This record gives sequence, structure tokens and C-alpha cells, in this order.
Amino acid sequence: MASIDGDVSPLAHVTEFLVSDTRETTLTEPDVENPRKVKFTVTPVKLDPLIRTSQDETKNHDGLVPRPHNRKYSDAFTQFEQDDVTLGTLTTPSDTLLTQSSITALLSSKFKDFHKKMKQYGLASPRFRKRLVSKWESLNYDKNECDLYCEEEHDNQSKKKYLLKTVSRWVIMFIVGIGAAVLAAGIHIIVEVVAHKKFGLIQKYIDKCAKENCLIIPVLIWSGINLVVSLLAAALVTYLSPMAAGSGIPLIKSYLNGVKIPGLLSLQCFIAKTVGVVLSILGGLACGKEGPMAHSGSIIAAGLGKGRIHWCGKKRKEIKLVMWSDEVYESFRSDHEIRDFVAGGAASGVSAAFGAPVGGTLFSVEEAASFWNTELVWRVFFSAMVACFTTNVLISAFNGDPTHLSNPGLVRFDTFQSLSFNLIEIPVFMVMAVIGGLIGALFVVLNYKLTVFRQKYLHRYKWIKISEAGLVAVVSAIIGFMMMYGLNDCVESKPSSHHALTSKMFCEDKKYNSMSSLFLTTPEGCLKALLHDPFDSFSATSLVAFVVVFFMLGVWTYGLSVSSGVFIPSLAIGAAWGRLVGMGVIQLFPDQAKDLGKYALIGAAAQLGGILRTTISLTVIIVECTGDISFGLCIMIALMVSKWVGDFFTTGLYDMNIEVSGIPILMPEPPPMCEHLKASEVMSQPVLSLYPKEKVGYIIDVLIAETFSGFPIIEPRSKRDQSVGKLKGLILSSQLLTLLRKKNFAPEGMPCPSNVRMKDFNDPFPTELIKIEDIDQKLTDEEKECVIDFRPYMNKTPYTVSPEFSMPRVFRLFRGLGLRHIIIVNDRYEPLGMVTRKDLAKFRAESKRGMLKIEHLKIEDI
Amino acid sequence: MASIDGDVSPLAHVTEFLVSDTRETTLTEPDVENPRKVKFTVTPVKLDPLIRTSQDETKNHDGLVPRPHNRKYSDAFTQFEQDDVTLGTLTTPSDTLLTQSSITALLSSKFKDFHKKMKQYGLASPRFRKRLVSKWESLNYDKNECDLYCEEEHDNQSKKKYLLKTVSRWVIMFIVGIGAAVLAAGIHIIVEVVAHKKFGLIQKYIDKCAKENCLIIPVLIWSGINLVVSLLAAALVTYLSPMAAGSGIPLIKSYLNGVKIPGLLSLQCFIAKTVGVVLSILGGLACGKEGPMAHSGSIIAAGLGKGRIHWCGKKRKEIKLVMWSDEVYESFRSDHEIRDFVAGGAASGVSAAFGAPVGGTLFSVEEAASFWNTELVWRVFFSAMVACFTTNVLISAFNGDPTHLSNPGLVRFDTFQSLSFNLIEIPVFMVMAVIGGLIGALFVVLNYKLTVFRQKYLHRYKWIKISEAGLVAVVSAIIGFMMMYGLNDCVESKPSSHHALTSKMFCEDKKYNSMSSLFLTTPEGCLKALLHDPFDSFSATSLVAFVVVFFMLGVWTYGLSVSSGVFIPSLAIGAAWGRLVGMGVIQLFPDQAKDLGKYALIGAAAQLGGILRTTISLTVIIVECTGDISFGLCIMIALMVSKWVGDFFTTGLYDMNIEVSGIPILMPEPPPMCEHLKASEVMSQPVLSLYPKEKVGYIIDVLIAETFSGFPIIEPRSKRDQSVGKLKGLILSSQLLTLLRKKNFAPEGMPCPSNVRMKDFNDPFPTELIKIEDIDQKLTDEEKECVIDFRPYMNKTPYTVSPEFSMPRVFRLFRGLGLRHIIIVNDRYEPLGMVTRKDLAKFRAESKRGMLKIEHLKIEDI
Repeated sequence: MASIDGDVSPLAHVTEFLVSDTRETTLTEPDVENPRKVKFTVTPVKLDPLIRTSQDETKNHDGLVPRPHNRKYSDAFTQFEQDDVTLGTLTTPSDTLLTQSSITALLSSKFKDFHKKMKQYGLASPRFRKRLVSKWESLNYDKNECDLYCEEEHDNQSKKKYLLKTVSRWVIMFIVGIGAAVLAAGIHIIVEVVAHKKFGLIQKYIDKCAKENCLIIPVLIWSGINLVVSLLAAALVTYLSPMAAGSGIPLIKSYLNGVKIPGLLSLQCFIAKTVGVVLSILGGLACGKEGPMAHSGSIIAAGLGKGRIHWCGKKRKEIKLVMWSDEVYESFRSDHEIRDFVAGGAASGVSAAFGAPVGGTLFSVEEAASFWNTELVWRVFFSAMVACFTTNVLISAFNGDPTHLSNPGLVRFDTFQSLSFNLIEIPVFMVMAVIGGLIGALFVVLNYKLTVFRQKYLHRYKWIKISEAGLVAVVSAIIGFMMMYGLNDCVESKPSSHHALTSKMFCEDKKYNSMSSLFLTTPEGCLKALLHDPFDSFSATSLVAFVVVFFMLGVWTYGLSVSSGVFIPSLAIGAAWGRLVGMGVIQLFPDQAKDLGKYALIGAAAQLGGILRTTISLTVIIVECTGDISFGLCIMIALMVSKWVGDFFTTGLYDMNIEVSGIPILMPEPPPMCEHLKASEVMSQPVLSLYPKEKVGYIIDVLIAETFSGFPIIEPRSKRDQSVGKLKGLILSSQLLTLLRKKNFAPEGMPCPSNVRMKDFNDPFPTELIKIEDIDQKLTDEEKECVIDFRPYMNKTPYTVSPEFSMPRVFRLFRGLGLRHIIIVNDRYEPLGMVTRKDLAKFRAESKRGMLKIEHLKIEDI
Repeated sequence: MASIDGDVSPLAHVTEFLVSDTRETTLTEPDVENPRKVKFTVTPVKLDPLIRTSQDETKNHDGLVPRPHNRKYSDAFTQFEQDDVTLGTLTTPSDTLLTQSSITALLSSKFKDFHKKMKQYGLASPRFRKRLVSKWESLNYDKNECDLYCEEEHDNQSKKKYLLKTVSRWVIMFIVGIGAAVLAAGIHIIVEVVAHKKFGLIQKYIDKCAKENCLIIPVLIWSGINLVVSLLAAALVTYLSPMAAGSGIPLIKSYLNGVKIPGLLSLQCFIAKTVGVVLSILGGLACGKEGPMAHSGSIIAAGLGKGRIHWCGKKRKEIKLVMWSDEVYESFRSDHEIRDFVAGGAASGVSAAFGAPVGGTLFSVEEAASFWNTELVWRVFFSAMVACFTTNVLISAFNGDPTHLSNPGLVRFDTFQSLSFNLIEIPVFMVMAVIGGLIGALFVVLNYKLTVFRQKYLHRYKWIKISEAGLVAVVSAIIGFMMMYGLNDCVESKPSSHHALTSKMFCEDKKYNSMSSLFLTTPEGCLKALLHDPFDSFSATSLVAFVVVFFMLGVWTYGLSVSSGVFIPSLAIGAAWGRLVGMGVIQLFPDQAKDLGKYALIGAAAQLGGILRTTISLTVIIVECTGDISFGLCIMIALMVSKWVGDFFTTGLYDMNIEVSGIPILMPEPPPMCEHLKASEVMSQPVLSLYPKEKVGYIIDVLIAETFSGFPIIEPRSKRDQSVGKLKGLILSSQLLTLLRKKNFAPEGMPCPSNVRMKDFNDPFPTELIKIEDIDQKLTDEEKECVIDFRPYMNKTPYTVSPEFSMPRVFRLFRGLGLRHIIIVNDRYEPLGMVTRKDLAKFRAESKRGMLKIEHLKIEDI
């Protein structure tokens, strides 16, 4: 490959690192959605001849069987000509400003050493965080206002329908709230009842066997139950829907950010998630049920919004959930509307889990800058409020007093004895926040290493994944028992909760084993005990041991192939060391009230902040859980400082998850110091352009050979004008598939049938189900000679920018409007390239150990 | 004028209604910022000859003195040629698709009857709500990435600076929070102390004179104090800063929405606002201090962000508030950065006023869809938290116990005895919400009529405005006294607050006059009494009388030329009738607890919702004030239903205010059912285009004659090509002024001096202070022959869209990115027209009595 010197075109560098596998003169095209297939013979010295040298066509487009059609396949590529980009200068029409200035920018910018870096991260050593995976596509939030759409809208438009749609949205959000609440309360009640029975049984045997010296029996019972149940939990997730593993929040975040995640909102994911989380907790794993709740809420919302839910197995089944006429649902089946419903569902889930309607709403909105509008947020908030209220009624009813309404969410921190604090305590809280940030960063690093290890070695066979979950469950049981047995920490004070199970084990009368109140309960019960139990419930040694053990279990559990949340374990770890700090402070200043509650709370908040790093919504959620606004500032400081400290070392756990998956998420703001990058340097190029009318056979060739998700439509060239055609529109590959499937073509000269409607394009899973190869086989040679007319279906007004646009502005345009493609046009309105999500997401700012770094991620095809 | 038939170009109709004052064949250009000055002789049958008929130049551009320059003034107008807009069709290059389809769209759409409607709203009868005022311009949130900027950024760019800026933002937000809190607490304490003295004096005289039969003395004292203080309050606002009248929230809303409001953030506005609100309350007006707090907080934030605050009198003074190097401040002086600080300031103000940090944050964010990003919201939230906490410390310290921290805000609803509720109570709350909505709508209607009356008749002379305030204050005092005297409602129960002043008047021993506890206090004290006083504190008759009287006073007070908020009066009215409803319910179901608190609260919420109609932030604010999340659902229902009921009749009070001022605010979503409108129908057209190099004299001519705020720069025409030039960039008129002022020009052929830096363009008030006429006089004829080169300063990449873009998508682009101009280009990249804020804001959806209507507002020049 050419060395870096002033003469080399900037794009040569940018694309260079992509070819570490094929060390020849072939240059892999960076992207439109899939970088692998299009290859060009190229001498990467000047950009100019990049595409023009296409003499040897069959070699360039391997895999493409030559077919009889008039137009050459390679002709369709819009060429990047050097004088196309002279928009920057006015007086000298033929200069090479872009190339020159870009080289300067590139050499002087932080990207100088792409080449070196990218070699380090070659395919040989999979650096999971430094890449994007090409399979993730964008959702399309922009409306395709094609002629067909305008026509249908024109017929449909009526005030009555507009009102019906508005009312439907509210009613659906109401039912989503109820649904999320019923689900949350149901899971909560089942877990509480069954777990109480399970731990009651174990406790009985422990107390019996401590006297009769048969302690092996409770250990066997405990590990046995854990093993069986957790194997079930893991099998359910692994076989039914691997998407349901983990908390689901990173995936929901990505979805709301605009990434298409196939199967995320399917029925089997719902089942695996909800049943799975019950089994995980009953299986004794160190996990919570709050994250999964947000995911389940989202699935409920998507199902109710679309009026149907899919079973995406080998055969795709559809279950109808009808409430309105199908006409209303049809208009709700666009990416845009479903995202709005999913935002409501996620908010309801969080709201039901924590009793935090405002926090839930913020959680949903935080991730999706592009769609904050008052009316939508109001609907989301309504849904969250309904969820919170319904959960409250249901759980209060379960507790025997439905009118008391004291259980707004599943997790509540209950009332603290006192949360008054002194200004001089704030430094203490800040130190705790630093500790939280450090422990959090360690958690993320360890979990990252474990995740990579799992992806490399354990995820080859399903049975390994399942066995690992079983192993963790058994180890959890044994460790729990060992803690009780080994520490034998006997205390006198009563636990604050009346439901708590305590075991005596070897303790004297009127005393009990302190560890039993932490291990003979669900992780939530454990958290409550740590927050509220009296001052002398746990000895310092026990707490230290608990923190270490629970931390290790937490790291190991998160990322298993089970449905599990990380909120509760994080909070429990933090609450435990928070108590420790509190005990230290009270030792130093003995005239204080012996109340550890606030220290445990700050510790919990700091730990959560250190691990997750989400900020405003988390603060509000914890404040709402606590119910004390004055103390909010302390919680906020704890979360903020712990985030800063944590960010100094790593990204947050959820972000780490997203990065490991290679999901091209877009940050709310463009990466700093990228002002020098121009759209022409960011764009994918060359683009494959189509004419307004194309032969069926040719389209099939294109679709088989390429995985571009959208194609610019250009004006047909006349003979005398050799330049590229003017941009006329944009058509998506999914639209092409639909048109082919519906046989929307006719022999040349005849009008095409008008058998396609907008709703045919809105079907969310066409690309997954329609294989282009199948269509190819089904069509006769005669049909392949027919012509498709794209004009009624193409988006006539795609967003275009000039090549001089700076990358931050392209970024804001893309993210602000939720786009899928931006076409770069020159001043003759001819397409030069396209910008997609991955072109923007590949620039990532990372702040590591206080240093700000801009990285250029690799796009990988798996 | 031509009648509507198929042959008439759509733009002829759209612009037609603008000429109701000049019934000839002159056609007023709809906009770029000012519609008045450019006039064209036109026969409005075809769009084509719209500009071409420019033979009689001196008549067309009256007021323009012919000057010696090579290029003709009218040449600069980019022409709208019919074949420029054929982008929609691919095969037939010369058809008239746009014209045809637009006519169809126009005739079939709701805009058919523009002509008729617009005649009704002619200038003769000023319908204040159906217009936009041309003086309001947009802020510019998009960066002008011109060559100069790139150059400076290139020199400036360093990680250190980036970090310094980030840290500065946080520190400034911290200080903003402290500042807002100190201000809020200061105002609160002064008002409490002085008002207590004032009412103590009056009470003493009342009780003395009730026995000695000299009741005229307290009446005189009362009205005397009110008169003097309120005259002062009104004089302060009227003479110092008329912008400070009212609550300020509508103006802050508009500012955050992106409208430039000169003087809103100036020092005299700050003084008038803060001192004014103290005087207003002490003057006995029925108003609160919460709205003004948001405004003052914003001014503090803007001042601290810019590092200086302006005194915008006849002479403009500048007070420096230095904390960082001037270099940091320079980068904060863009519209974009200041808006972010103002959002924080407004949130802090609300947070300090209500002790509602989350509510305050939402209040700020709700208005500004375009800039929700996690980091900013986090900063805003931090600032709000700091404000809430500091207020708490300060007020607790004033109350004698700084560590108790029980006063997070100025207004708190305090703890209610019980807020548990039964599900069957929800219908009652809904009925109350309907009442709230109805009363609220009546409030808005009455206040609207009053506002229009004031604008028509009272606002001619300043002394009338001031006298009106004095009159209201005296009437308030007399009514207060009459209520106590006339009703003579003697009760036995003690008021809940220990501070409350009660007068005996004619009551027996151990009893007191119930009205005295409502009128011998500030409106806030009155609200607290209504929320918390025991069941039999007020008789039903007293409450009815209070509601009627306070409602009338509230309507009359809001809109006076004093600094005053409407929150507290609204809440008090609602709480009073809420108590009434509660008394009725308890009468019907006598076995209930005799607790009126929750009914008063719901009444207050419903009334506030009915008057203001803001939704999510208000709910959160009230929930935070109440501190009970379970009851949140009831409050939410009350606010929601009252909003719906109110919206059925009118818009909310703040929106009414904005509409009366003619501020072109953009709703979060484009108006419904406007999909058929194309960008080419919305845009202002023709546009005045400039060449990259122009003579100074010519630019001065243009600036004197036109009030366009931006000019497209086009490629110079060559002789052989007669079409319009390609778009090369955009320059703002404020930039032109700066270039002229800095004498950035040189004789033809010489290089221009490079004496202009980006910060010279960022000065927020250049257009107000630099008069183009002054510049004209100062320049010699020689200098006027010099040439300015725009290329280093013009925005080379303005946002462009094709004429086929639908209006909703243009709207989303404009609002989503906070733009000021969008240029419409044809497929040869030549400018056809521009879209500015007013072009989009003139389409307004209004739902009146359940009917959805799209209105087309008039742009008026005052």
C-alpha cells in the first residue's frame, strides 16, 4: 500500500485500514451498510482513477453472474470526479481545493496515525471495543414522501382520522402503562412468594442441621434448586431468544438511538425475558429484575402499537392484538410511530420497577434527542404514571390493603429514619463517590475482559453458555452458605423488615447469623437489609467479606446467557461498603446519631453511578425512590463524581456492552475537534446509482451483489453529456424487494401495475423474510426483461448536503432528524457519495485517563 | 386582483392577502424579515413575469437614491423561473408539474379560503392573535463555518482549551444556581418581613378602630401604602424596561424557542424585574413572584455566561463580570452557548421558586426541542439542584435553623395531613378538572380582551399605564377590607401557620374574621391558608365571594405594566373553589375525614392547568412541591383534563401572550395536514442575491433599502449564460454591517485587509447600535467605490432543500437544528427562495371548540 505522503488522497488512508486481510491493490469500499462485497482494482495514489479503472469487470464484481442487460453494472456507480468538489472556490473553476485542504486537515489532525493504529487492531486480535459491526442498520424515522404516499395521504386526510389517531395513541399508552404494571407486579409477587418458600426451606434445614450436624443437606438442597432453575433460565434464553440475555437496557438504548435490532421486540424475546428473569432470581443469581422490566415494557408497547406481535422463529407467526380498525394500526407501523410507543413502554417499565414515573420518562427521553416534543413526552409521562399507580394498587392489594398505596414500585428504598445532613458531610460523600467510581471502573474492566473471553471461547456452543449459568448459580449457593458458616457473625438486633428470614445456625439464643439476612433472601431483600437494618446488624468483617464476594458474583453474573439486571447487585455492593464508611465516620465522630442509612444510600448511588454512568435519569430515579428532595443534591453529587471518576478509566457498563456488540450508536453530540473533517471525507463512496426505470434482471443482480440499503436515482444520461446524472430521488433496497415480490413491473413501454401500497413498504421485517435469491429463482427470464418504474415510490426529496459541509453539522443533521441516508451532491446536483449511520459512528471520542482521544473505528462484517 | 382559478400561480394567492392596505397591482413581498419595503409592479397571473417587469426602476424601489455603480440593484434578485422547479419529473423536461400540482393542492386543501379570511382580518380591525409582527427575528444557533472560522479554530484548537471550556461551563452553571438562589431567597425574605410589618400595622388599626369606630383610618393606610408602592412598581417597569412587565415566562419561552428579543437579558430588565416584583407584592397586587424568578435567573445566567451585562439605554454600557480569561468568554458569546446558559438560569429560577429541580429542568427543556442533549440537561439539572439546595439553606437560616433544611423553595405546599385517596374519588377530581378548565378558559378570554383593550387605548401614554397599576392596588385594598367588613365571617379554628395575622374586627372573643387570614397576607400566605387551614376556617359564602373577587383581581392584574407572576393567584383561586367542592363532598359522604387539603390541592392544580396549559413540567413542579408521588397521578389527571377542556375554548395564557405580541414561535411539531404544501409555496421569494465581491456603495444601497437578514451569494454570471448563478454561500446583514464598520474593503484589484475576526460577528447587538445611515454618511465617495470580498466570511454551506420538500419536513429541519435561513435551490443549485422562521410560523393549527383549524397568519410591520 502507498505510504502516507502529501500526494495521496485522504480517502486512500481512511479506507486503507479496512483491507488488512487482503494485502494487494484491492481497496475495500468502506460502507454503505456492508463493506465486504464491492471491490475495485485501484492504485490508491489519486482519488480520480479510483473507479474509472473498471476494465476487468468480472474480476471486480466476483460472485456476479453476467446477465443479459443493456446497462453495465459498473456504470451505475456514481463517479467521484475531482472537479465535482470545487464548490469552495469561486474564481478559479478548476482547482483542486478539496483534495489539498483535506490532506492538510488530515495530516494536521488527530487522524494522522490511523494507519498505524488500525494495523494494531487488525483482525488477528479482536479488539471488541474498537469496531462497528456492519450488520446493524439504521431505523428510518424520516417519512418517505413519495408520490404514492402523497396520493394516499390525499385520499386519507380527514380531521376525523387525525383525531382518531390522536386518541388511539393516548389509549394505547394507557394500556401500555397498565400492561407494564401488571407484568411488573406479577413478576414481583411470584418471585417474592416462591423465593420466600425456597429460602424458608433452606433456613429450616440449616437451623435443624446446625444442631444435628448434617449441614451438607441444606447446601445440597440450595445448590440443587439453584442449578436446576438457573439451567432452565439459561436454556430458555439461549434457545428461544439470545437477544433476551442481560438487562436489555443497552439494546433498548440502541433502538431508541435509531439502530435496527431484529427480533428485539418479538414475542419469544418477551417470553424469554419475563419468564427468564423470574427463573434467574429464583435460581439464586446475583441479579435484579429492573432492567428486564424496561425491555418487557418496550415489547408490550411495540406489540400494542403495531396491533400485532411476531414470533420470529424459522416460520414467522403473527398474533393480532386488535383494538382499533386495521387502518389506524397501519399508520402506526412506521419506524417513527413504533419508536414513540417503545419510548413509552420503556418508561412504563422503569416506572413500574422503581415507582419513578419522572425518572422513567427521563430515562426514555435521554437516549433520543431527535424526538423530544412536548406532546410525546406528555404521553410517555402519562403512561409511566399509570404504570406506577397500577403497580402501587396491585402490590398494595397483594399486601392486603389496596387503598393504602404505599408501594409505588417494586424497589423502594422505603422511608429512612432520617436523611438530614450537615454541609460538612458533603466531602465525605464525595470521597465515597470517588470510591464508587473506582470500584465501578474495576467492575466494568473485569466484566469487559470476561465478555471478550466469553465471546472468544465460550460462545461457540450453546451448552457451554447454559452450563456456565448453572455453575454460577451453584457457586452462589455455596458461597452464600460459606459466608454464613465461615464468618459465623452472630448479632442481636432485629432486621428492619418483618418478612426477613434469619437463621440461627450456631448462634446463641436471641441472636442470629447476620449473613443469613443477606443471603437467605432475594438480592432486593439483601439491599433493603443493608439500607435499613440497625447500626449493629453487621460486623465490619462481614461487610468486607460481603462486598468482595458480591462484587465478584456480580461481575461473573452480568453477561451470562440469562435475563438479568445489574441495578440491584450494584446498589447492594454500594450499600454494603457505604455502611462500612458510615461505621468509620461514626467511630471518628462518636456524638453522631448511629444511623447508617444515609451512608448506605450514598454508597449505593455512588456504586451505581460508577458502574452505569447514566446520569440525570438515574438521579431522578433514586431521588424518587428515596422520596426526599433535599437529599437529592447529595445523591446527585455522588452520581456525578462517581461518573467522572469512572469515566477517567473506562466507559460505563451499558456503553461497554454496546461497544462490544459493535452497535453504531450515535452520541448526542458530534465528537469534539472534528470540525476539519468535511462531508466528502466522511461519506461512503462511490455510490451505486440507478436510473428511474431499470430492468428487473439488473435490479436482481444489484441486490444479490450489493448490500447497500439505499440507492440514489439519477437522471438518465444523454449521449452527448458524459457526466453523471442529476439526483432525482432515493430508493431503499427494502422497497426494491417489495416491488419485486409484488411483481410491480411490466414489459418495456407498458405501464406498471399499481398493486403496491405504502403499508407494503412499512412491514417491518421484509428484508429478513424475503430472500433475493428466492425471488431470483421464481422469476422467469421473460419477467426479468421487464422494467420497474421507481418514480412513484422513490423519495423525491432526500436530504442532500454539499461536500464542504463539516462533519459535526452532518452529524447534527443526521441525528437531529433521525435520518438513514444523507446524499452528498456537488453543485450540479449529482450524487458524489452517501453518509450513513456507520460513517458517522466510526468517529468516536474517548476520554481515557483524562486524555481526550478521537478514534476511528473499524467496520467489521460478522 | 385575479380571481382564483386554475391558471393562477399558487404564490399569487399566498401573497395576495398581504396587500389589503394597498388595493392596486403592487404585490408586497411576504418576507425575508420585513415585508414592507420591496414592492414590484406585477400582473399576478403567471409567476414568471413577477420580477422580470422591472423597467420602471425608480418607481419600484422608492426611497432608493440612484447611485453610481456598475450593477443594477434589481439584477441582484434571484429570479424564479418556471422550469427551475421541474425536479419532480424525470422524463418530460419542460412540463409545469409544480405549478399544476400546487394549484391542485392549494385548491383542495384547507387554504382555499385564504383570501376571504384575510380580508376579514384586515388592518382596520386589529385581530391581535392572527398575526405575526415582523420585528421579531430568529436567533442563529447554527455555526457559520466560514473560512475565517476554520482558520481561527485551526489555530485555537487544543485539548486544553476544550477542557477549560467544559470546566468553565460547569462552574458558570454552579454560580448561576447560587445566584438564582440568593436572589430568590433575598426577595422572599424582604417580602416576608416588610409585608408582615405592613399587614401588622393594618391589622392593629383594624382591631383598634373596630371598637373605636374609625375604620376609615385602616382603609386609608392600606390603600395609601398600596397606591404609593404600586405606582413605584409600575413606574420602574414602564420607564426602565417595558420588557420586564408581566411574568416574563412567555418571553423566556420565546427566546428558548429561538426568537431574538432585544433587551430581554439586559441589566435594566433585571433591575426592573427583581425590584419590581418586590414592589408589586408589597403594593398589594394579586400576583406572585415565581414567574419573574425564572426571568431573573435567565438574566443572571446570560450575564455570567457572556462575562458581561449590558445597560441598553440611549447609551449602551457594559459591565464586565470577569472570572475567566476573555478568550473563554469569547467562545461563549454565540447565540448557541448563551441559550444553553439561559436554559440553566430559567431552570434555576423555577427550581429556587418552587423547590422543584426536576420540574425546573423540564420547564427549560420543554420549550426547546432542538437542544436536548444529555450533557446539557445534566448541567441544567445541576444548576437547578444547586439553586434548590442553596435556597433551602438560606431560608432555613433565616428561619433560624440552617441545618434543618425544610424549605427547598419559596413556595412549598408544606406537608398535607393526608393525601391518601380512594379510586372512587378520581371522578370527583375529574369533575374538578373540568371546572378548572372552564374557569381557566374564562380567565384567558377576559384577559385577552383586556390586553387588546389596553394595547388599543391605554398604552399610548406611560402615565396611563402607571395610573392603572395604582388604581388596581387601591381597589385591591378596598376590596380586601370590604370582604372582611361585609362578610364578617367569624370563625373559631386557628390558622395552620403560626405567622398568620388574623384580625378580630367585630368578632367575639376567641373568634376572628376569617377573611383577614386571606387578605392580611401576601398571595402566598393566602394560598397556604387555603390549602392547610382546618375544615371550618372559612364558610362557604366567604369562599364563593373570595373566588369571584380574587378571580376578577387576577384577571385585571395580569398584564399591568408591573413585574408580576400568575402562578400564585391561579393556585389560590383553585384552592378556594377546591375547598368548596371538598365541603360539598364531605356533606354528601359525611363519614369521610374532614380534610379539605387534597381537594384544595386538586382545585389549585386544575385551575393552574386551566389557565396555563403547560403540562409535564407543571405536573412535576406540583408533585415536587407536594412531595407525594402516589398523589401525582391525581394531579396529573387534573392538569391533563383541565388542559383539554381549556384548549377546547382558547389557548393558554402564556401562548395568548405570545400570540398577542405577534412573536413567531414554532410549535414542537409542524401543523397537521400541511403535507401538501411544498417548500416552494412556503418560501419567501424573490431573494436578493449578491456576488462574492460587491462595491461598498452598492451594499449600502441594499442595506438601506432592504431589511432582509441574509443574502445568498451566487456565482457571477458570465455573459453567455443568462441564467441565475449557482449558490455559493450565505451572508448575514449583520455581517455586512460589521464588515462596513470595520472598513474591510479595498479598491478593486487590491487584497482586502484582514482586520475582522469571528468575535466581531458574535457581538450580540451590532444591528441595534450600528445604523447603516451613519455608516453611509461617514464613508467617502472614494471608499464607496471600493470592493468587499465576502468569501472569507460567508457561510459556504448553508442548508439547502429542493422546492419539492414538503412543508412539515422543512419545518422539522428548521426547528430541529435551530436554523435561521433555509435556501431553496433548484437542480442547478441556483437559489429560488428562502425560508425563514416567519414563513413557517405563519401556518398555525388551532383547535377551537373541538374543531381543528389551520390558519395562515398575517405578517405585520409595527
